[in-house]
Formats: sequence, C-alpha cells, structure tokens
Amino acid sequence: MEHSPYLLTPGPLSTSARTRHSMLRDWGSWDADFNQITERLRGRLLAIVNGSATHECVPLQGSGTFAVEAAIGTIVPRDGHVLVPLNGAYCQRIARICKVLGRRLTTIEFAEDAPVLAAAVDRALAADPSITHVALVHCETSTGILNPLQAIADVARARGKGLIVDAMSSFGALEIDARTTAFDALIAASGKCLEGVPGMGFVLVERGVLSRSEGNSPSVALDLYDQWTYMNRTTQWRFTPPTHVVAALDAALTQYLEEGGLAARGAAYAKNCAQLVAGMAAIGLRPFLPAPIQAPIIVTFLAPEDRRYDFKAFYNAVKARGYILYPGKLTTRETFRVGCMGQLGPRGISGAVAAVGEALDELGIKGREALA
Amino acid sequence: MEHSPYLLTPGPLSTSARTRHSMLRDWGSWDADFNQITERLRGRLLAIVNGSATHECVPLQGSGTFAVEAAIGTIVPRDGHVLVPLNGAYCQRIARICKVLGRRLTTIEFAEDAPVLAAAVDRALAADPSITHVALVHCETSTGILNPLQAIADVARARGKGLIVDAMSSFGALEIDARTTAFDALIAASGKCLEGVPGMGFVLVERGVLSRSEGNSPSVALDLYDQWTYMNRTTQWRFTPPTHVVAALDAALTQYLEEGGLAARGAAYAKNCAQLVAGMAAIGLRPFLPAPIQAPIIVTFLAPEDRRYDFKAFYNAVKARGYILYPGKLTTRETFRVGCMGQLGPRGISGAVAAVGEALDELGIKGREALA
Repeated sequence: MEHSPYLLTPGPLSTSARTRHSMLRDWGSWDADFNQITERLRGRLLAIVNGSATHECVPLQGSGTFAVEAAIGTIVPRDGHVLVPLNGAYCQRIARICKVLGRRLTTIEFAEDAPVLAAAVDRALAADPSITHVALVHCETSTGILNPLQAIADVARARGKGLIVDAMSSFGALEIDARTTAFDALIAASGKCLEGVPGMGFVLVERGVLSRSEGNSPSVALDLYDQWTYMNRTTQWRFTPPTHVVAALDAALTQYLEEGGLAARGAAYAKNCAQLVAGMAAIGLRPFLPAPIQAPIIVTFLAPEDRRYDFKAFYNAVKARGYILYPGKLTTRETFRVGCMGQLGPRGISGAVAAVGEALDELGIKGREALA
Repeated sequence: MEHSPYLLTPGPLSTSARTRHSMLRDWGSWDADFNQITERLRGRLLAIVNGSATHECVPLQGSGTFAVEAAIGTIVPRDGHVLVPLNGAYCQRIARICKVLGRRLTTIEFAEDAPVLAAAVDRALAADPSITHVALVHCETSTGILNPLQAIADVARARGKGLIVDAMSSFGALEIDARTTAFDALIAASGKCLEGVPGMGFVLVERGVLSRSEGNSPSVALDLYDQWTYMNRTTQWRFTPPTHVVAALDAALTQYLEEGGLAARGAAYAKNCAQLVAGMAAIGLRPFLPAPIQAPIIVTFLAPEDRRYDFKAFYNAVKARGYILYPGKLTTRETFRVGCMGQLGPRGISGAVAAVGEALDELGIKGREALA
C-alpha cells in the first residue's frame, strides 16, 4: 500500500485500516452472508436516530446526491410543493433537483453566513398553504454552517408539512432523535461522519410516508419505494449493490459503536474543530463563520490577504506535508476548507495545522497578522 | 481476511488479490492523483472498443442499471421513440425504464431461448418511422444468450436510427469495435468482465450525440451530459465518486491489459465455458440454450428432473464446497446459472464442476441420467 495523505475534506475522508481491510473479501450479492450485512447495517443506521419503531432505512447505490434525488422523487408526490430555505450550495442542489424532477418549488434566501430562520420558514408556510414539504440541509458542507433542525422540524410539524432533511454532513456525529424531531425522510451517506468509504447513500423514511409513496418516483433506479419493498421481500438489493462499500460501512459502524457511538464521535469532532480553529488562529487564519453557527464537521477559513496567495500552490505545499485540504465554495470570498472528520493520524489536528503553517511560510504568504 | 467462496455468478464476481488490495488507500476526490486515475480509466475503456476518435466515456456512480437509465434519459430526446426487442429480463428492464421516464416505447417479443432477429428489427423500423432509437441487450444475463449486435447495428444504421447497447455482460470479453459497429451509446459496469468491484457503471457515447443531449435528462444525478461537461471542465466527478471502486477498476484494467486485453479475456472465458458445459454434461446436467447462441459469460442449466431437487439446498451444498452459484431467472423452467467470469481459484472450472457433482450426490438427486 502506498503512503496516502490524510484527507481534511468533506469526504471521502481517511478511513481506518480496519475499515479498508474489510474490502479484501468478495461477496455474492444473492448470498445470505452478504444480505445479513445489509440487514444489520439498516438496523444500526436506524438505531443511531432512535428510529427503529417509526422509520425504515433504505440504502441506495451511488453518491449522497443520488439518495437526495431519490428521496425527493419518492417522498414528494408529483403534485407536491417543496419549500427550500437556501444558505449554501447543497440547498441550491436540492432546489435544482426539485426543478428537474418537475416538483413545484418555493425558495427563501438567506446569506451564506447566516443560519436558516425557523420563523421565516413558518411565515413562508403560512403564506402559501399549497406547500407540502420543507427540505432542509442540516449542516451546509459548502460553508460548514449548522441549520436549526429542531426548530424547523417543530414548525413543519405544527403546520402539518413533511420534512426532508439532508443530513449528509451531520448524521452520526450531531444528535438527531426521531422520537423528538419529526421528519419524513433523512438522507446521509457512507463516506462522511460514519467514516466508511464512498459509494452508497441511505434514506431513513417514516414508515407510513414510505408505504404511501408507490408510483411517485420518476425514476426506476432511484425509486426508494421499490428498493424497500424488493429488499423486504428478498433480503437483496434491487440492483447490484456496491458489495465492498457495504462491507466497509458495516465495519466502520462496528468501530463507531465500539468507540461509543454518536456521543463519542460528536465529541471527537468537536475537539478536532476547537483545536483546528485555535491552531489556525495562532498562525493568523480566521474562520469564515462565527463560532456559534459553526458545525464541528468542516471549517471554512478566509484565505490570507496577500496577493501572492494561490490556492493551488498552497494546496500542493500542504499536500507535500501529508495533508489534503479542500477548496472553498463561496462565490464572494476567497476561502479554503478543512475537515474535522476521519482518521487524522498520530499527530491529529496539530499535524495538519503545522503543515498549513509551514506551507504558508514556505510560500512567503503574509497578510495574516491582521487576522490573528 | 476470511476465506471467501469463489463466485460463479453474473457479478459481483471473484476479483484478484491485486485488485482488492488497490482499495487499501483513501483518495481525495478533488486531488489530481485521483483525477488522473479517472482520466486514465476513461481512455482505457474507450480504447477497448477502438472508440477514442469517435466516442466519449462517461463514468457514473451506482450499479449498471443506473448507467442504463442514465443513457436512455440522456441520449433519447423527450419526444424520442425507442424500439426494444425483448428476449430476457434485462431487455424488459430497459422497456420499464423507457415507460417510467415517459419515453415512447415499442417492443418486439422473442422467446427466451431465441436471439433477437435483425430482420424483425428491420421490419419494425420500416413499419413505424417515428421510432428514433433501438435499445439492445448484447448478452442477456438472465439466460446467457448472445444477441447479434453487428446485424442489428447495421439495420439501425441503414434506417438512420440511434442504437443503445446494454453491453453489461459482454464488454471487455466479446469484441465490439466502434469503427465497424455503429452505436450511439454502449453501457457496461465495473464488476463484470473487467473484473473490478461493483459500484460504478460507464457509458461510451458517440461524441456528436452526447454534445447534442443537453437538457434531455429528467434527472440531476443521472444526467450524463452534465457529468461529461463537468468532468471535462474540472477533471472531477460531479458528485462524490466511489473512490475505492474507481481505483479497483483501474487496477483491474492494468491487469486486463497485462494479460492480453480483450482477446485473452474472451479466450479465457470461452475456455471456462466449454469446460463447464462439458464437465456438467459428464455429471448429467444440460444447458438451457443451444451452443451456437450461448455467450461464454454465464450458462443457464436445467435443474435435475427430481422432485427432491431444491435450489436452496443445492446452493448451500455447493457453497459448503467453496463455490457460489446463482439462481435461474426463467419463469417457465426450473434452472440455475453458473458464471464463467472472474478468478476461479487454482482448480478453476473443474473444481466448480466437482463441487456441483458432490453436492448433488450428497443430496441424493437423480433425474440426471436422461440428460447426459
């Protein structure tokens, strides 16, 4: 195995050796040994949100976006109307999916550095009773902002609307409890906070909602109702599953539970995030978001105010020191992103901060003093 | 790593240790090291059909069916009309995809043990000039039958129709030459004759056809035009790629080329198939299809005519001997399937045939003499 740099990204991220080694076996997709893995995995994913009594877990091949599109297409009836509060690229993607699928769409715009406001969602629902669903991104990966899921779930429930949550970057690390947070569907993927490898998503759907969703989907491959009923009838995936990715997620979940589950994972990421922000401040780099709305998943940093700064050169200098950063996704500010997830090696976050500092020094980048 | 049985299935199949070990590294999806793999892979896949000058390779997350749906949705305009000749479950699936996507559909029915006839396709095209595309399954995995791709491509070209080929079970082992076989799109996946792991498909699309397909797709995730233009602009996949699956396919392709490419792979499978049919005949088991229309990929065998025969018990007895079979998919006859692909271990096909014979003896299954 080649040496590989640690991934400080929104995913794919650095997995444990044990997770990667679980991919050294081939599985028959019809075989009971494999289908037991699928069954165990579905149960474990539901248990993370205490949803076993109320929800169903439907795994799906592909990236997280495939699962988001599948959820919108399967859960929202063809004459449904979706309200999407916008404060980042992933909310924008949900809005685009609604448009392409021909679902009626209403949006509310927020600034990229401001969380979605439950009161604004409430006003929009009051203003247009034809809205049937709210689609919310829990943690906006494009900035790292945390949106107030509980408050928006309460508003949606009070107005009798369905809630679809993109929990891609929060599931497994930030608490979501299906017993107290009402949602129709919640979407996440294998390669994020659960620290599996990328290649599958999953949707946790309220059982009654799912059982009433036959025929909604405008797609064969992305039809969660069909995937669910076929899986329940046969124990198998409807189409060839990514067997090694499934086995890796199962192995990652075993480690997740051994390490203490959501509380431990969330605490580890919160510690990483605090160390990262403090360490970067010490070398003159400041986060884009104020601390109270920063999710401990991925942090957007403002680029140094030095005209010699070039992200690509900076990226390569940090990579040469064994860490992979991620570009920013804002249109208005020059930024870069650093993930708090995954296996970060023996030196952890401090190694990453040291690599960033050395890289900036090597490149002679100033313009950081004012920020410190 | 646990001992795992050899997979005599239509895929996922048994991969080489070298292919599996390529998954022991994590890759950043934004990083140039990974995107060079994607680029190399696209070029190698095109070269297999001599399509580099005329076609584009668009990889897609998910199973092969995701890529089939993506191809239909992207290549066939919304007012297009697809002719689907039916002689098995995978042709039926294409017909279902056309219906769900709202594309106009005409079908021609053939028996499950008869190849599609080019003359019948020609008559159907002559009878209804509104047909814009023919969608053909090259090797029908549900039986193992080989359909006459060249003859149907010639008919489609002569009538000025587009051809979409599901080459899932033939690509890389049976010769397809884009210079002499005209096709608009040809679809295959990672976990079949190329012997990668499952989790991604790819579509080879004629360049002019692809460049005129903007806005056709009724899906965001399955839009091959968007995937292609984004990948060309950024070198990256549009949404998170299954990085380990991509790396495994690249490693599998390296071995494929080292071993002699298509000619060698096709010859190996043909040898496996001949050994399998001869070996099974010696223990009284006969293939469902006549030899001339049997593709050397997967063979459907008639179950023994003994009322004690039960596929599940038979399957488990063979599995206990280290081999995984596959159930039949015919509605009219009791059958089972045996794949000719993948790494079959030191004893190869003869080990598999011995396991089948021992399993039938153990279960006391007669009703095979008449077939021998």
